[in-house]
Amino acid sequence: MNGKVNPYEVEGRIDYDKLIKDFGVKKITPEILKEIEKIAGELHPYLKRGIFFAYRDLKKVLDEYKKGNKFFLYTGRAPSGPIHLGHISVWIFMKWLQDKFGVEVWFQFPDEEKFLFKQDSNWEEIQKWLHENMLDVIALGFDPKKTHFLIDTQHAGIMYPEAVKVAKKITFSSIKAAFGFNDSNNIGSIFYTAMQTVPVFLPNILKNEKRPCLIPLGIDQDVHFRLSRDVVEKLGYEKPAIIHARFMPPLTGVEGKMSSSNPDSAILMTDSPEEVKRKVNKYAFSGGRDTAEEHRKHGGNVEIDIACQWLKYFEYDDKKLEKIYEDYSKGKLLSGEVKKILIGKINEFLTEHQKRRKLAEKLIPKFIYKI
Amino acid sequence: MNGKVNPYEVEGRIDYDKLIKDFGVKKITPEILKEIEKIAGELHPYLKRGIFFAYRDLKKVLDEYKKGNKFFLYTGRAPSGPIHLGHISVWIFMKWLQDKFGVEVWFQFPDEEKFLFKQDSNWEEIQKWLHENMLDVIALGFDPKKTHFLIDTQHAGIMYPEAVKVAKKITFSSIKAAFGFNDSNNIGSIFYTAMQTVPVFLPNILKNEKRPCLIPLGIDQDVHFRLSRDVVEKLGYEKPAIIHARFMPPLTGVEGKMSSSNPDSAILMTDSPEEVKRKVNKYAFSGGRDTAEEHRKHGGNVEIDIACQWLKYFEYDDKKLEKIYEDYSKGKLLSGEVKKILIGKINEFLTEHQKRRKLAEKLIPKFIYKI
Repeated sequence: MNGKVNPYEVEGRIDYDKLIKDFGVKKITPEILKEIEKIAGELHPYLKRGIFFAYRDLKKVLDEYKKGNKFFLYTGRAPSGPIHLGHISVWIFMKWLQDKFGVEVWFQFPDEEKFLFKQDSNWEEIQKWLHENMLDVIALGFDPKKTHFLIDTQHAGIMYPEAVKVAKKITFSSIKAAFGFNDSNNIGSIFYTAMQTVPVFLPNILKNEKRPCLIPLGIDQDVHFRLSRDVVEKLGYEKPAIIHARFMPPLTGVEGKMSSSNPDSAILMTDSPEEVKRKVNKYAFSGGRDTAEEHRKHGGNVEIDIACQWLKYFEYDDKKLEKIYEDYSKGKLLSGEVKKILIGKINEFLTEHQKRRKLAEKLIPKFIYKI
Repeated sequence: MNGKVNPYEVEGRIDYDKLIKDFGVKKITPEILKEIEKIAGELHPYLKRGIFFAYRDLKKVLDEYKKGNKFFLYTGRAPSGPIHLGHISVWIFMKWLQDKFGVEVWFQFPDEEKFLFKQDSNWEEIQKWLHENMLDVIALGFDPKKTHFLIDTQHAGIMYPEAVKVAKKITFSSIKAAFGFNDSNNIGSIFYTAMQTVPVFLPNILKNEKRPCLIPLGIDQDVHFRLSRDVVEKLGYEKPAIIHARFMPPLTGVEGKMSSSNPDSAILMTDSPEEVKRKVNKYAFSGGRDTAEEHRKHGGNVEIDIACQWLKYFEYDDKKLEKIYEDYSKGKLLSGEVKKILIGKINEFLTEHQKRRKLAEKLIPKFIYKI
């Protein structure tokens, strides 16, 4: 049995092959990777390692690109808490796409979403997180000339009129079926998916173009677009292409999804080196044996060892990663040693990130789309 | 049995006393009229004649006014077709209130409403009607310094963030109960009432004040605010006061409500004098007898005679109106003669209106609220 995977719940062990079937998406093939490599000159480790593993309509987007019609990228973040390492894998990959393909990024901050979906959420609190979250996105190094933030409550003037056109084509029945809502859902949460659909075509309206839209996202968000791809087409726009990421597992084990509301399961972008060390050492689920002796003898299980799994995200050198996996499997590397490697990699990354995060403050106005 | 009365259907014979009970509103009393007269120096004929007949919280608003805290007025028009005489009675009364009480008018044009509720409606068509409808409102003579148009698709930037706060407090169950919606309603129509609630408190946010809000409206619109009055209070604002108008009957008889979609039932603001004459003579339901002879003998029925009923709206001189009613009841006046009087009054009014309507074009920018 598969765990739950939808925008409001990700639980249990996730069978990605089953998701591909259930969601009706396609698995990324070596042929597609070759296509991407041909254009980009290289493959991002997240592609080689299957972190991005599925897609919709990606081939069309690549074909258009080869004809000279560049796509734009769209993703988003609903602010309500701090950014953690689980959030950024999609964005790191987007930045790579932006660099390699020279494309625009449209980044939506639907700052009403969590307000509508979490009963105890607070408007001012969310606005604070919006600000904090923008800093983290900017710190990842997106090109300010080619990156546009759409903030639902600040850009409602251009978004709501388009959302209305989307909304007219979606019944509450469809929403119920797609998201499992019921009659006690509030009417804002029911309408919300229309706002999330708008950036699929708004950039083309604003710039009077007909570029394809490519959405990199965690597979839990796929349902929003499963619902709206047909709607968008009925409105006369191309269906967006999608490339789906797996979830980065929580520190505490390979099931479910990392979450800021469980601080033991996640490392935040603002965590200090000591905090990173403490969390990894204390909480990272180990694939090792009960004793060092047994481990040396029988080896560890990289598949469930979180330090090994997380290194897929931080050790870009394939050979080094392979060596770590091999040594760990054979018992040459102990759990504590792999943890130490991971801590080093994360802290190297976060030190740099936190430096750029400080400079991001004054870049915010450059990123917010000017109406 | 009472006819149907809700924002999406008004049908049959309407028992206004029953509506007062069903909706939980209060009947306007001679005491309240005296209060208004004391401040205004006179009473508008529509008050004396019971065209405005019910209210919520009106006394509070008058008390605040006497203490020096002026209310603001809020009403609206969902564009989708031409304005007819049935629409304007509420607005004529509002203009009188504006003049006599020196208050602001906030006029909402929810230009997404009919788009969402009428399957075959067309966006561009509605935008055309928005423009036409604004001309008619302006032509009624509102003070451009004290009158602000809020157009949902143009002011979504300031309205949507507030609508979200309203929407969080309304479940789909409440919407179903209030409007009779079901699961095949589109998600935009479900959200819409939140947008209609916003002008209840937005003017105070924009101007950092705490004025009471008074909403003059046709009683069919009451349900929007029945639903949202509690919500508004939960958000920390005062419940709006409401003053309710009866429906001006269609030309074709005293049942239901005038409608542009049945052109025989309505006279449009742009109708020519000949058109007015033709429509009244051809369609105005007569309360007279089968022959002139019988009529002279037994008299006519003013209660069902549309010409008589409509004169309540156009003959402001109480004595003249009384005389017409008396003469018609006694058979001294024939149906054709009352129609002639009505045609004269309407054409006098429309000639003046159409003159001002031409000048309204260049006033539009003065009326649209500047963000």
